[in-house]
Amino acid sequence: MRCFWDERQRAHAPAAEFFNGKLHPAAEHPGRVDSILSAIGRTEMPQDGGIEPLLRVHSRDYLDLLNDAHRDWLAAGREGDAFPYTFPIVGSRTLELSRIDARLGQHSFDTSTPIGPGTWEACYWSAQTGLAGLSAVLGGERSAFAFTRPPGHHAGRDYLGGYSYLNHAAICAEAALAAGRRRIAMLDVDYHHGNGTQDIFAGREDVFFASIHADPSTDYPFFWGHADETSGNILDLPLPRGTDWGGYAPALTHAIDWLEKATPDLLIVSYGADTHEADPISYFKLKTSDYAPMARRIASMNLPTLVVMEGGYAIEALGANVSEFLGSF
Amino acid sequence: MRCFWDERQRAHAPAAEFFNGKLHPAAEHPGRVDSILSAIGRTEMPQDGGIEPLLRVHSRDYLDLLNDAHRDWLAAGREGDAFPYTFPIVGSRTLELSRIDARLGQHSFDTSTPIGPGTWEACYWSAQTGLAGLSAVLGGERSAFAFTRPPGHHAGRDYLGGYSYLNHAAICAEAALAAGRRRIAMLDVDYHHGNGTQDIFAGREDVFFASIHADPSTDYPFFWGHADETSGNILDLPLPRGTDWGGYAPALTHAIDWLEKATPDLLIVSYGADTHEADPISYFKLKTSDYAPMARRIASMNLPTLVVMEGGYAIEALGANVSEFLGSF
Repeated sequence: MRCFWDERQRAHAPAAEFFNGKLHPAAEHPGRVDSILSAIGRTEMPQDGGIEPLLRVHSRDYLDLLNDAHRDWLAAGREGDAFPYTFPIVGSRTLELSRIDARLGQHSFDTSTPIGPGTWEACYWSAQTGLAGLSAVLGGERSAFAFTRPPGHHAGRDYLGGYSYLNHAAICAEAALAAGRRRIAMLDVDYHHGNGTQDIFAGREDVFFASIHADPSTDYPFFWGHADETSGNILDLPLPRGTDWGGYAPALTHAIDWLEKATPDLLIVSYGADTHEADPISYFKLKTSDYAPMARRIASMNLPTLVVMEGGYAIEALGANVSEFLGSF
Repeated sequence: MRCFWDERQRAHAPAAEFFNGKLHPAAEHPGRVDSILSAIGRTEMPQDGGIEPLLRVHSRDYLDLLNDAHRDWLAAGREGDAFPYTFPIVGSRTLELSRIDARLGQHSFDTSTPIGPGTWEACYWSAQTGLAGLSAVLGGERSAFAFTRPPGHHAGRDYLGGYSYLNHAAICAEAALAAGRRRIAMLDVDYHHGNGTQDIFAGREDVFFASIHADPSTDYPFFWGHADETSGNILDLPLPRGTDWGGYAPALTHAIDWLEKATPDLLIVSYGADTHEADPISYFKLKTSDYAPMARRIASMNLPTLVVMEGGYAIEALGANVSEFLGSF
């Protein structure tokens, strides 16, 4: 399988994230990169497809924030990565605000996703990596892997969170539609609900989003991914903590059956390896060997398939999990 | 002037708050108490008026959170004060969630307002202190001072923030209406916009809220208090950083004139001493001596008046500022 990656994606290197009342070392750090690169072997660099594909998904204001937040943060006399700390409440009106603290709060939903000096560069090239993988698939490859990093599926049209800034899966789906594909299936198998992707495509008739994830009544992102959000083009299949392959496989079959009914002409998989039993921030019990049947079942859909990388934080198992998944396509 | 205070209000003792990307020592700490108590002299303890007056303003769910958040936080294996870190975004649907992280995010709008083991006790008695001051005024006192602490004016019906948990001014306004007063004037002279009070009473015909505060385009709480929020029973008068008494006095006259037109029969003043030039987190330039003409101008409204305490963090000047204000009534 052709794999895509750009070294500039390492530029995002957050020092810490804030949760449980403390600053912790960032779980989504560049150390994830070598683990995956060493497992997947040769990668191709993306070309620069420019900002237009990003603007099909994200608002200009939001992209501007990603671009200039850290500069404005330093200009305001702060040090380190830019963190939000004051948030508009549910039901608030939209406001055009210039203060960096206000802008960060408006466009963030957690305190685990700081913006550093290299965040924009890494995210920009991560998106280009996704688009390069898509180009390979649109060009005739049966499947391709875009090693997008940082992750993307928690990012909405105008908000970041969950270590995600640009929604690569969504950017690729819109690019595929712009290139003439008619109906896109999106399958999210990260441990956490892909709230950003869902928000971006809810109500659409040309994109179908199925997500299998930890029950948000116990797990991040808490406010999305509940079973009753299923409707129209959205299928949410929350599973309890402790789910192993025996509990996971039927949900995967359900999701695939549902996506196939939509008669899509392209599949985009948001793959997270944080469903693995060793993941330090997640609570499913999949084993490395389970990613082979997972991939085979997905491959049986017999669709041109782009796999983009989402989470996965068990560094020592990460490479093996990714290669097990990709190798079984 | 009769002054009210309850020693149980010391029970709230946050260690830290999270902003500017770091944990900082909490600005709103019990050290504020002695500074004010030593300046105002004798205080009276409130009686216990129960939970009903709180429920006229705050939702049961929200009061439950204040009551049990820290217990649930510890039960979830965390240490220290309970902090929110994941927030529903603007436009999210309402959800009934039990996970402590979700509940904190749903009911908070910043990361500066943690819930500790004594927060509920302190807030409960702070509200009773407010109500005791109100009782004195309803009983015939020309004015009374309720040393409410922690502050209250940033707290909404179902959310905390800005060091505020229960909105004492709002609780007293509702209690006054329940006791037969017809039209309540609320004047907020804290440095920061009283967003909670505004949210609670927006659209009402029996409560009139005027606030003079730092422009939210540069200052916390950012998402409320802009001049264009003025309408009906709300008057917002944002002022630029650096405002001194010369710039402040005309806004005060404007606010008082506007409130007097509403022909109120009771005045509740949210007094913050963080308009003082020495305040470490604020940027107005009022001097201690300016609180005398401020108080005299307010007293000229010739209304039964309850003063409740909001912010003020320049410990060395705090007592003098409060006594200058109260002494000129």
